[in-house]
Amino acid sequence: MTTSSTPVVSARGPADHTIRDQIVVAATEHFSRYGYEKTTVSDLAKAIGFSKAYIYKFFESKQAIGEMICSNCLQEIEREVRAAIDGADHPPEKLRRMFKAIVESSLRLFFRDRKLYDIAASAATERWLSARTYESHVKDMIRDIVQQGRQTGDFERKTPLDEAVTAIHLVVRPYTDPLLLQHSFDSAQEAPAQLSSLVLRSLSP
Amino acid sequence: MTTSSTPVVSARGPADHTIRDQIVVAATEHFSRYGYEKTTVSDLAKAIGFSKAYIYKFFESKQAIGEMICSNCLQEIEREVRAAIDGADHPPEKLRRMFKAIVESSLRLFFRDRKLYDIAASAATERWLSARTYESHVKDMIRDIVQQGRQTGDFERKTPLDEAVTAIHLVVRPYTDPLLLQHSFDSAQEAPAQLSSLVLRSLSP
Repeated sequence: MTTSSTPVVSARGPADHTIRDQIVVAATEHFSRYGYEKTTVSDLAKAIGFSKAYIYKFFESKQAIGEMICSNCLQEIEREVRAAIDGADHPPEKLRRMFKAIVESSLRLFFRDRKLYDIAASAATERWLSARTYESHVKDMIRDIVQQGRQTGDFERKTPLDEAVTAIHLVVRPYTDPLLLQHSFDSAQEAPAQLSSLVLRSLSP
Repeated sequence: MTTSSTPVVSARGPADHTIRDQIVVAATEHFSRYGYEKTTVSDLAKAIGFSKAYIYKFFESKQAIGEMICSNCLQEIEREVRAAIDGADHPPEKLRRMFKAIVESSLRLFFRDRKLYDIAASAATERWLSARTYESHVKDMIRDIVQQGRQTGDFERKTPLDEAVTAIHLVVRPYTDPLLLQHSFDSAQEAPAQLSSLVLRSLSP
């Protein structure tokens, strides 16, 4: 399965965390080409040019490598979404941009650029820590925007905060969860605007 | 694959539509036990006790039988949802009941009682006519409720009707589309109440 363009990790003895990083980089490249589910640690070791035993010195399982890749990928989505939110001054516009950015980043990272859907799907199905952390961060971003909007007077304050946040998270979930996103392509172009408008109407004082 | 409880279609020469119905009943039973994807028309013929050629006299393909089963199933959900809507007097309560009934009926018919998920998933993936018809009927039900609520003064009238209806349909879609519903079990208990409350806040005048 090794191809000439697959990066080979150097074995010149850098610090352990660097070797871990190198394994993650090479595994990301490999999984995105051959898929996560179908690849074994042996395949991966062969492609990287390490022994299987050496890889196991750094990661206890394929899932541990997958967790690291998934976590990197979800953190990248988070950064992009936070940048989009920070680019707006007013809470209603922050919410619109959040919905737009989350759909665009998720589509790009899970399905186009790196084809990491396979890993993200395992993470979501098996509820890996990285997936649960991401979900709670998405909720935090929603909560922050709603709270800010309540302070500025843009949003109503009658509905209990948790209730509003949970419901908004349910609305956006088909576009943040990769398992649902794969069945939401048809609406992915227009849904962010339509759904954020509906949510903003629900938040109006 | 024939079992003693699989109904065998009588060949005493009833009208064609009755034979069609009998094939559909027997196929529903068979598919719900052995799955739609994995079953061939030959398997089905054997189980029913007909020749394959005889079945082809009534249905041009396995999908044509699947379409009929799917259509029956979706019509049953529709009936249950319409009954739930009709059981309430006021548009806001109609909307709440619609959300609740659609989730409950879909869960029951696709996943529990008859295990028809397999057929519903094919219908949704391949966008069979039965699935598209159902989707447009769900939208019609939403439109009717929103229009009634605008007439009674329960709902706002500023948002273009189509925009409101499309967005509400997107909100409920994770619970009406079987492909999404299979990944929405965790929230299926509480989502109808949470989402219908959010939608009602979005509709408030």
